[in-house]
Amino acid sequence: MDPIQIDDARDPRVAAYFDIRERDLTGRHGRFVAEGKVVLDVLLSAGRFTAESILVLENRLAGLDDILRKAPADLPVYVAASNIMDRIAGFHMHRGILAIGSKGTPQPAEALLGTLPVDALIVVLVGIANHDNMGSIFRNAAAFGADAVFVDSTCCDPLYRKAIRVSVGAALKVPFASFGDTEAFITKLDELGFGQVALSPRGEADIRDAARPKRLALYLGTEGEGLPESLLARLRTVRIAMSEGFDSLNVAAASAIALHHFSR
Amino acid sequence: MDPIQIDDARDPRVAAYFDIRERDLTGRHGRFVAEGKVVLDVLLSAGRFTAESILVLENRLAGLDDILRKAPADLPVYVAASNIMDRIAGFHMHRGILAIGSKGTPQPAEALLGTLPVDALIVVLVGIANHDNMGSIFRNAAAFGADAVFVDSTCCDPLYRKAIRVSVGAALKVPFASFGDTEAFITKLDELGFGQVALSPRGEADIRDAARPKRLALYLGTEGEGLPESLLARLRTVRIAMSEGFDSLNVAAASAIALHHFSR
Repeated sequence: MDPIQIDDARDPRVAAYFDIRERDLTGRHGRFVAEGKVVLDVLLSAGRFTAESILVLENRLAGLDDILRKAPADLPVYVAASNIMDRIAGFHMHRGILAIGSKGTPQPAEALLGTLPVDALIVVLVGIANHDNMGSIFRNAAAFGADAVFVDSTCCDPLYRKAIRVSVGAALKVPFASFGDTEAFITKLDELGFGQVALSPRGEADIRDAARPKRLALYLGTEGEGLPESLLARLRTVRIAMSEGFDSLNVAAASAIALHHFSR
Repeated sequence: MDPIQIDDARDPRVAAYFDIRERDLTGRHGRFVAEGKVVLDVLLSAGRFTAESILVLENRLAGLDDILRKAPADLPVYVAASNIMDRIAGFHMHRGILAIGSKGTPQPAEALLGTLPVDALIVVLVGIANHDNMGSIFRNAAAFGADAVFVDSTCCDPLYRKAIRVSVGAALKVPFASFGDTEAFITKLDELGFGQVALSPRGEADIRDAARPKRLALYLGTEGEGLPESLLARLRTVRIAMSEGFDSLNVAAASAIALHHFSR
């Protein structure tokens, strides 16, 4: 591929990169932003999403040879000097590596469920609204070989820029889908033979004593309120034993402990 | 206590709160900033550090009764309207609860070691330069009852504003001290009967098979480079088994898994 030099910060060919931070709030019409070398590598290697273009600081280009070789030959690679890149993005881009990807058509939860192996480990998220937590949970899901992540309608978008960055690209690799009615989703997983386990500070069993069902759905809720009582009543609940007087664990840390415990 | 109304954003009585973010970079001469209700509660309850003053949005004051009751009667509590508070701090303070604490004289590592119980669990950090990770590790240390945290000279300050916030106050509760020469520190812990275990992706044993020594020092290094080989050669090393092709775990997530494993 031949890199395309950008000398005008308002060049329409790089319009998708304009004012990146403001765009986080208003949305990108089916696109997402991938930042940094490792995330770009995952985007191009995993093949789950289509890259639309890449924008790189001119002094970072040489170091990307191995990664760019994984890109389709017709993928536009834009190159800019530091001051132009900052003006395109609207803030100082010290990483200097950006890509725009297409979200494509979201896969329905039922379709994704149909692709899962008999010994699937899936993560079910309810009310995870913080992008750091979302990204960290995806990173842990990838690290411990979870087959998919399912998010309810109150969760934030795993393809939000910061979530992708914190996930170190795992949000572009681990398949995920969104579901609407949580009660119906539980029923569906039940029919599909999933053992359904929820992490809860008031869980009935210590996670150390919890056996791994062949197919496992691990539920995680928000840190503050946790999972709704109506859900907990339908699931097996496990707790992570903590020191008295400081029973506060970040939901991403809890996901690491639980996924490590249940992974094989 | 009688709250003191602040109507002038440059009132010298609240000088410690001026331009909070810029001050993160230039330092605060032995002071730290605690943000939010939960962190303020830990500051006043744990008693490890002295609070110098509190600055609260006027509409948050009523909700702090239970917490402020834990403060010494002569602790100044400043109250400001939202626009004044934002101008004091230099950015929008949506939390609306700040406190300044005094770091006091740092406790030497040797002195802190002398206070530890026979079955102590301590965390030793080498090169943790990211405030999010530092805060998260402290939060996990508190959650799993670690007795102390020791940081080498290349670690960031656990009392940096963001580290305290991310720790949910644990950095104000779990005793910590800094050490200089890591080799000498290892020798000292050896003399004190600590089993010394380092987390490393290339660790010789799976952490699932690692027994807990009565006194345990758990070493964590940076995510990128990990602990130096010269240190790993002197320690027992354990790994957290991960899925192939994505062997990337955040150091704070790794600390959660390891502390959970070794805590009792």
